[in-house]
Amino acid sequence: MADSRLLFLNENSRTFAGFNRPASPFVIVGLPMDTTSSFRPGSRFAPSVIRDTAQYIEFYSIRSGVDMGEIGFNDVGDVVLHPSNNEENVRRISEVVSYFAEKGKVVVGIGGEHTVTIGTTRGIRPDCLVSVDAHLDLRDDYMGYKYDHACVMRRISEYGVKIIEIGTRAVSREEIEYANEKGISYFTPKQVRLLGVREVAQKIITALKECNKVYITYDMDGIDPSYAPGVATPEPEGLDPTTVLDIMSLIIDKRVIGFDVVEVSPPFDPSGVTSVLAAKIILETASMVWKARQQS
Amino acid sequence: MADSRLLFLNENSRTFAGFNRPASPFVIVGLPMDTTSSFRPGSRFAPSVIRDTAQYIEFYSIRSGVDMGEIGFNDVGDVVLHPSNNEENVRRISEVVSYFAEKGKVVVGIGGEHTVTIGTTRGIRPDCLVSVDAHLDLRDDYMGYKYDHACVMRRISEYGVKIIEIGTRAVSREEIEYANEKGISYFTPKQVRLLGVREVAQKIITALKECNKVYITYDMDGIDPSYAPGVATPEPEGLDPTTVLDIMSLIIDKRVIGFDVVEVSPPFDPSGVTSVLAAKIILETASMVWKARQQS
Amino acid sequence: MADSRLLFLNENSRTFAGFNRPASPFVIVGLPMDTTSSFRPGSRFAPSVIRDTAQYIEFYSIRSGVDMGEIGFNDVGDVVLHPSNNEENVRRISEVVSYFAEKGKVVVGIGGEHTVTIGTTRGIRPDCLVSVDAHLDLRDDYMGYKYDHACVMRRISEYGVKIIEIGTRAVSREEIEYANEKGISYFTPKQVRLLGVREVAQKIITALKECNKVYITYDMDGIDPSYAPGVATPEPEGLDPTTVLDIMSLIIDKRVIGFDVVEVSPPFDPSGVTSVLAAKIILETASMVWKARQQS
Amino acid sequence: MADSRLLFLNENSRTFAGFNRPASPFVIVGLPMDTTSSFRPGSRFAPSVIRDTAQYIEFYSIRSGVDMGEIGFNDVGDVVLHPSNNEENVRRISEVVSYFAEKGKVVVGIGGEHTVTIGTTRGIRPDCLVSVDAHLDLRDDYMGYKYDHACVMRRISEYGVKIIEIGTRAVSREEIEYANEKGISYFTPKQVRLLGVREVAQKIITALKECNKVYITYDMDGIDPSYAPGVATPEPEGLDPTTVLDIMSLIIDKRVIGFDVVEVSPPFDPSGVTSVLAAKIILETASMVWKARQQS
Amino acid sequence: MADSRLLFLNENSRTFAGFNRPASPFVIVGLPMDTTSSFRPGSRFAPSVIRDTAQYIEFYSIRSGVDMGEIGFNDVGDVVLHPSNNEENVRRISEVVSYFAEKGKVVVGIGGEHTVTIGTTRGIRPDCLVSVDAHLDLRDDYMGYKYDHACVMRRISEYGVKIIEIGTRAVSREEIEYANEKGISYFTPKQVRLLGVREVAQKIITALKECNKVYITYDMDGIDPSYAPGVATPEPEGLDPTTVLDIMSLIIDKRVIGFDVVEVSPPFDPSGVTSVLAAKIILETASMVWKARQQS
Amino acid sequence: MADSRLLFLNENSRTFAGFNRPASPFVIVGLPMDTTSSFRPGSRFAPSVIRDTAQYIEFYSIRSGVDMGEIGFNDVGDVVLHPSNNEENVRRISEVVSYFAEKGKVVVGIGGEHTVTIGTTRGIRPDCLVSVDAHLDLRDDYMGYKYDHACVMRRISEYGVKIIEIGTRAVSREEIEYANEKGISYFTPKQVRLLGVREVAQKIITALKECNKVYITYDMDGIDPSYAPGVATPEPEGLDPTTVLDIMSLIIDKRVIGFDVVEVSPPFDPSGVTSVLAAKIILETASMVWKARQQS
Ligand SMILES: [Mn+2]
Ligand SMILES: [Mn+2]
Ligand SMILES: [Mn+2]
Ligand SMILES: [Mn+2]
Ligand SMILES: [Mn+2]
Ligand SMILES: [Mn+2]
Ligand SMILES: [Mn+2]
Ligand SMILES: [Mn+2]
Ligand SMILES: [Mn+2]
Ligand SMILES: [Mn+2]
Ligand SMILES: [Mn+2]
Ligand SMILES: [Mn+2]
Repeated sequence: MADSRLLFLNENSRTFAGFNRPASPFVIVGLPMDTTSSFRPGSRFAPSVIRDTAQYIEFYSIRSGVDMGEIGFNDVGDVVLHPSNNEENVRRISEVVSYFAEKGKVVVGIGGEHTVTIGTTRGIRPDCLVSVDAHLDLRDDYMGYKYDHACVMRRISEYGVKIIEIGTRAVSREEIEYANEKGISYFTPKQVRLLGVREVAQKIITALKECNKVYITYDMDGIDPSYAPGVATPEPEGLDPTTVLDIMSLIIDKRVIGFDVVEVSPPFDPSGVTSVLAAKIILETASMVWKARQQS
Repeated sequence: MADSRLLFLNENSRTFAGFNRPASPFVIVGLPMDTTSSFRPGSRFAPSVIRDTAQYIEFYSIRSGVDMGEIGFNDVGDVVLHPSNNEENVRRISEVVSYFAEKGKVVVGIGGEHTVTIGTTRGIRPDCLVSVDAHLDLRDDYMGYKYDHACVMRRISEYGVKIIEIGTRAVSREEIEYANEKGISYFTPKQVRLLGVREVAQKIITALKECNKVYITYDMDGIDPSYAPGVATPEPEGLDPTTVLDIMSLIIDKRVIGFDVVEVSPPFDPSGVTSVLAAKIILETASMVWKARQQS
Repeated sequence: MADSRLLFLNENSRTFAGFNRPASPFVIVGLPMDTTSSFRPGSRFAPSVIRDTAQYIEFYSIRSGVDMGEIGFNDVGDVVLHPSNNEENVRRISEVVSYFAEKGKVVVGIGGEHTVTIGTTRGIRPDCLVSVDAHLDLRDDYMGYKYDHACVMRRISEYGVKIIEIGTRAVSREEIEYANEKGISYFTPKQVRLLGVREVAQKIITALKECNKVYITYDMDGIDPSYAPGVATPEPEGLDPTTVLDIMSLIIDKRVIGFDVVEVSPPFDPSGVTSVLAAKIILETASMVWKARQQS
Repeated sequence: MADSRLLFLNENSRTFAGFNRPASPFVIVGLPMDTTSSFRPGSRFAPSVIRDTAQYIEFYSIRSGVDMGEIGFNDVGDVVLHPSNNEENVRRISEVVSYFAEKGKVVVGIGGEHTVTIGTTRGIRPDCLVSVDAHLDLRDDYMGYKYDHACVMRRISEYGVKIIEIGTRAVSREEIEYANEKGISYFTPKQVRLLGVREVAQKIITALKECNKVYITYDMDGIDPSYAPGVATPEPEGLDPTTVLDIMSLIIDKRVIGFDVVEVSPPFDPSGVTSVLAAKIILETASMVWKARQQS
Repeated sequence: MADSRLLFLNENSRTFAGFNRPASPFVIVGLPMDTTSSFRPGSRFAPSVIRDTAQYIEFYSIRSGVDMGEIGFNDVGDVVLHPSNNEENVRRISEVVSYFAEKGKVVVGIGGEHTVTIGTTRGIRPDCLVSVDAHLDLRDDYMGYKYDHACVMRRISEYGVKIIEIGTRAVSREEIEYANEKGISYFTPKQVRLLGVREVAQKIITALKECNKVYITYDMDGIDPSYAPGVATPEPEGLDPTTVLDIMSLIIDKRVIGFDVVEVSPPFDPSGVTSVLAAKIILETASMVWKARQQS
Repeated sequence: MADSRLLFLNENSRTFAGFNRPASPFVIVGLPMDTTSSFRPGSRFAPSVIRDTAQYIEFYSIRSGVDMGEIGFNDVGDVVLHPSNNEENVRRISEVVSYFAEKGKVVVGIGGEHTVTIGTTRGIRPDCLVSVDAHLDLRDDYMGYKYDHACVMRRISEYGVKIIEIGTRAVSREEIEYANEKGISYFTPKQVRLLGVREVAQKIITALKECNKVYITYDMDGIDPSYAPGVATPEPEGLDPTTVLDIMSLIIDKRVIGFDVVEVSPPFDPSGVTSVLAAKIILETASMVWKARQQS
């Protein structure tokens, strides 16, 4: 891999569930950055812990009928990050990811804080993004800083990506106003409960109609803390994993060109179930993407 | 604050979410007492931990449309407690709380074990009380002792307060008989599921019709342990937080003159989600009370 | 107790909830074996922790109206296990358990890994078994080894016991094929949600029609990790405890001659709620068995 | 055991290292009281944890050449304590302990907070006491309360017991003045280092010359926190265990009629080494007492 | 406090041991920055945890005979830090600290990572610095970054401060060469053991002869991990606390105008003893400085 | 690597401190076996945790003046172990290790329980062995089982290896008698303190005079629990790491052909310092062996 963009790729890490299949369409990239986590740091450890945890999960998905053990993953390692320059880190992530995107791979990012998604989307260049998140992440800046986990969707929105958010429940008035103004749609857990999985999925499918390349980002705090306690900013009254995955199984099609799982904080996950769930979400989402590609 | 009742108020503590607004209608009082916790002590640490945790939660409530960040709280500190004389402690709590109640403030107690509610209600003098709790707390005494967390509702009932309990599921036969005899109504989680939020709320509204001053107490073990693992006596098959808060949003009106959140035990909450939920319940309940007062 | 089968019974352990009633129909046996736990060992500590935890739970069951405090348990201690010979351990468990089964006792096993159930069923000789489990445990061998927790139901199936599984969601294709071939029925959480408690119970009752002796095994990973984080192999998207117990309350009758609770791993249960739930499941199940026996 | 003093003895606990030898001269009594622990509660769990831990330690003492496995212990259970009345608890402990003292047994108390030693000494009635402790525990009262862990030696001193303290380093001026006034000698870790084991022992032997019955109390915070992190009030710059035990091996003779180990707080001992050390100190001290009795 | 330099001072934090004495010569400043901690983040929580812990320690110092309870501290709060711009943070710390230094106060910084010392020294402007540290911190840059905890002493050295290091044992060849070249003297734990406390102190006193203003920095990893496990980068074979404090008691005189304690990481200090030791070091050092000022 | 002995080598693991230098004379092999750990299992996780931890330690050794960063390690992965057949596991370890020993490599084993040393020594065939251990491990069998961590030295002694033990303090009388009978010398911590590092080293050098191939095994419980709390069976009154390494630096010469570090149990090492120390011991020992080889 002589491309200069790979200079910041440290291949020397344990691989996701022990997989090492260069031919797999799924490229795993670790993004161990947690500089701006104001409350509970530690998401830098998540890529390593989620990779280990994944090896104890069954690879066969009942939901999609796909055995990911047959397809496997190509885990290319972690992006080497600067200790405190986030703008530089976003750039590095973007560079590394663009290399694999250009090769036609489905990039699977494992964060790290949500800020990494500014980098992955800049590298992959989707035109639409579906975000599972308790927060809108639409602040213009956070304490004067623009590359913060609270500003992720604002930054991505600014370079023209259409955004749809699910699980929204911890917001400021300013974010709601910005979302309304820019046509960013969001679904609170209450709305998801009232509408049901099918109707929510239908609304998202409609919103994605015009899109050519779709990216999915799972901020694990979108899930309820009972299922995902080990996140940087747990927020009560969230979604359950089955609802999230059932919605995804209805909206994922061959246009999905990448996804990530972010904000898991292993030091606050002493029972380990948040990492297990993150690994499961990666396996299930990959199996859906695979199935969608086979069917098309 | 020269009133002699404030002698036992230690103002030297961190404030709830960093708020320090003397003019706020909401007065936060820490009640760090856990003397009688027979199983898992540590609720003495809850006032401090919940105050810290609260600063990472959004202050805007989607449920009530109120931004508590604009209203704020007046955190007056902790009641200084005797190391082992609970009757004395109940007296101290009662004294401190009565001072703020007389000033027309909505008192928000952060326990500590449930026994503190004997003190807050004695200081505030509500005529009705709604309790979220896995237990009835209607024992006459516990191992010969009358000021125990298992006897709280019995003591409060004895000085004429009407009691309604939600989330009941761990009871003795004697407590059920006492409840029936005294007309104390309770709703098991099973009943809540069968009746639904609206019908439960309607029944409580009817029961509260005659009341002039209503107090709400959240024993966090009323919530299911999946959402609130860090409590002194976790009890399976409980309520989920959304159900509890949705019921409250229907029953809260301007008669609510105080509430508390008790029984969080931080040493048994390694992921911190129980404290996050406790902080959230305080914010949501305060926003409902505020909204109710504005509308009247 | 001079029977030679009791040579491997170490009576020197704390008793379940402090009970010590030789006359009780319920015999508690600790099975502290966790040799084959590939992911998260520690279930060897579960018998001790669950026994302690049980003393803080109310003994009265609202579900069945039975007060287990009046009936009690006869906790006979732990089976002394060989440090690494699992086949020998299965034999020891079988011996000890057969002694009490012959005396007409309802044996209540507290694991330990699921492999102990090969021993308890060999000792008790049921003709039918209901298993709550995320996994089918139908592998022929695991890394060449036949007495592994991943092979439990395969071994039991091989000596002619009819098996019904609930909560199934982490499976391999081979296990599904084996289940179909041998007529082993299983219910995924999705199916349980779609059919509802009553219809699932009805299907199981039909399947059990021909049975004379029924054994129930609760692999705690059948329950969702939000309720039972502290298990050896947590698997997302599981059942909630109320659903499991409600199904059990419909299918349990006087033919139930034993049950066990396995796979709790206290080192991965820092909030302790998994042990609380295990103790609760034992109390509720025993109360249902008692009620069924009274009614017949 | 029909003596009315044993009413408050709960025999239903796990035994120390699994020992159950009624004929042993050593009687283990659990004293799970931690009501007044102002900083880090949890010593109530210590009797149970130390008993379990003890079974993994070799019973043979290289120091004294005695195999405690041959002598064993008679673990009679825990004293049942009132949830918040410490004066009553001190009375109960005193009653239970006096029963065994009268039978000529060497009482080995496992605390619990240091306050339990007021009870054990009241029951055993030594005329001299050697205390290993970071603190002097000579306060007259603590926040108005006289039965507090900070007042233990003051109370014991008041009914005429001669007191010698080792490990002293966290003191108030008032305590030093009281000690000087009453002739209570103490050795700081610095003095122990300067004098050496032999000279310290010699000074204590001289001080004990007039004594008929000697009691030893190990407040585990006397040991340095590097060896004993899991205590209620860790205090840097303490003694190492070998120094403490070497001093004891020189001063223990047949006049020792009881000893205790207190202030271990298992929730703050996640690595478990404090409980291991407490168990070791019990075994070593018992072996020294046994040896002294054999030699006399 | 209208000085513009105090804009970044957040006064809303709990105070050190509950002290609030504006007149005290000792000003406590919290510096919760841990951006560059490559291994084990979490020192951002240390100011808060150490402040709380301090209230359970005796204020009387046997070593210096001073009762810090009579002198007290003026805890002015935390410096508000930028989430990821370290150079800006160093500037903010420098500004805040310079305000109090100009008022003649002894500044006591509680870190945070060691990088904060670049800021405190820039604000206080000592001409000499004594550092307790396992590392030399003399790297020119770390991964291209100059404001890293591995470069602290290099930066401070660059603006002309004379540096003496104690506890050195984890070094690179380049750092040793730089130290030799620049005349930065250091003492390994082995050298300290060989020379003894007095001789080491004498050498430092000689080296400090020419100094007018002396600053002391305690990187807690200078202490052995047995005493201070909860640090960002534990390094075996360190100094014990008594040796460090005994050296300090010999070298501290009235020229000491500030000191700090850094690199405590509470998430890796589950037993809490590292925070206890940090609080103790602050109390002991302050008592020595006080005594030195009284004597002069 | 086509040799059939490598069939059981799983190369897919993270490497020690990130090193991957096939040409290095040091071959790291992970031995994640903890089947017979009776007290505190979890050493199976140690190879992985120690490898990760090692990357945060300086590679330059002040003690030997060697920079291991220049020499590096060849981490070949973990031996794949049978879940419960220890005899088979000992065979597998022996096979894998013999391959590298024959190639002239210095084998560095990372356990796992001490039983792995039966395998490594069988593969490497030293004629002498130096063991740091709290225990003699000279039992003939443990509960009828011969391949247990309590029998390691007995097994190795049986095939003619000369054994010297350091740190001995938890023994049975039978083991002492066996040691005396077979001429196995051992040094208790007390003896090490009395004799001093030099004299102990001299005695060992004399004992090793006749040896051609020397193996060193560090059972981490040989070190005092204050330095190494996270071990399977912590035993008070142990050696400090500097004493152990200073002795080793005197006795290591070019005859050392392998060493291992065993019995670290990460689940009982919440502060991580035991893993840090294990990594340090590997680095220091390797640097001594390297230096010895250079000098010869
Ligand atoms: Mn986000
Ligand atoms: Mn979020
Ligand atoms: Mn209650
Ligand atoms: Mn309750
Ligand atoms: Mn199973
Ligand atoms: Mn299972
Ligand atoms: Mn004491
Ligand atoms: Mn003490
Ligand atoms: Mn440093
Ligand atoms: Mn350092
Ligand atoms: Mn060993
Ligand atoms: Mn050992």
